[in-house]
Amino acid sequence: MSENKMLPVDLPKAYRLLNHGPTVLVSAQHEQDTDVMAAAWACALELTPAKVTIVLDKSTKTRQLVEQSGYFALQVPCYAQIDMVHQLGTISKFDNPNKLEDCHTQIFYQAGFDVPLVKDSLAWLICKVIPEPYIQQTHDLFIGSVIAAWADPRVFKDGHWHFQNVEKELKSLHYIAGGTFYLIGDEVKASI
Amino acid sequence: MSENKMLPVDLPKAYRLLNHGPTVLVSAQHEQDTDVMAAAWACALELTPAKVTIVLDKSTKTRQLVEQSGYFALQVPCYAQIDMVHQLGTISKFDNPNKLEDCHTQIFYQAGFDVPLVKDSLAWLICKVIPEPYIQQTHDLFIGSVIAAWADPRVFKDGHWHFQNVEKELKSLHYIAGGTFYLIGDEVKASI
Repeated sequence: MSENKMLPVDLPKAYRLLNHGPTVLVSAQHEQDTDVMAAAWACALELTPAKVTIVLDKSTKTRQLVEQSGYFALQVPCYAQIDMVHQLGTISKFDNPNKLEDCHTQIFYQAGFDVPLVKDSLAWLICKVIPEPYIQQTHDLFIGSVIAAWADPRVFKDGHWHFQNVEKELKSLHYIAGGTFYLIGDEVKASI
Repeated sequence: MSENKMLPVDLPKAYRLLNHGPTVLVSAQHEQDTDVMAAAWACALELTPAKVTIVLDKSTKTRQLVEQSGYFALQVPCYAQIDMVHQLGTISKFDNPNKLEDCHTQIFYQAGFDVPLVKDSLAWLICKVIPEPYIQQTHDLFIGSVIAAWADPRVFKDGHWHFQNVEKELKSLHYIAGGTFYLIGDEVKASI
């Protein structure tokens, strides 16, 4: 999967990319400095206009870049990326300036956006920070307005995930602790 | 599963009950008035002291009760409860005062807490609202301090979920839209 295989997601449907609670990658850039971190604490906040929340600890380089640039991207990674996701969540770029290379994280850009995106993810949401300095400082919580979204049409199309019949490598990851994740499982429907 | 089968969860591990992104039930009570709603937009916010966020739309009776009482509970429901979860997310108690009876929702209480809990769930977190009137009004976002937590030891013990070997009925639910959910799937581990 490369940046060639991504289809736009209508913004009123963008919440569905996060609704099942996947662990995400958060990416950001200021000038030539980029970082990507893993985060389990991302959540939809509003349908229309599409908004999200993300918890960014003060110890992270990614947070610094989000504060400097006012933008971030969330991406939904998959089982094929599990080792990269775990490394991106445990290594700080403050400690290792070669973090992205060492984690084998390849980034690309969509035309018109200076926000780095992680190749081979399942979905991408570019977000503009809605400045709420008190919330950011007190609770480490950032609110983003989703300004563009895309997904890999093998797993998300027509506004719905299609995990039921995809290979294991394309299932979303749901982090617990200590390098242990769950994959998303079977589709089920309420009968009433 | 009844209220007899629940073991306390250490509060620094309570985030793990939500970390994999399950859909939750939100319950609240003011005086004799109770409500329960389903919500996909719940998230951990802090490890210690344990805090969570929950999005509560202004149209919901549950929000009114949370604002009146200053407390709510989050519970992690399972596949055995899918129809109840879907109904609790589509019926408003403002429209149907018999909502809980019609949804076959049985509540119980833990000693010392006036917060209603939903029987047969996988986990329960009782939360005290940290008042943030601006965030609540502007973003419909409530922050709760987790003051007590329990889980069904068949699926969560020693600080970890054990979904790998449980029957389908005890898997957590992850909502998408239109009555469609995913179950949590297989456990996987990063190799580095």
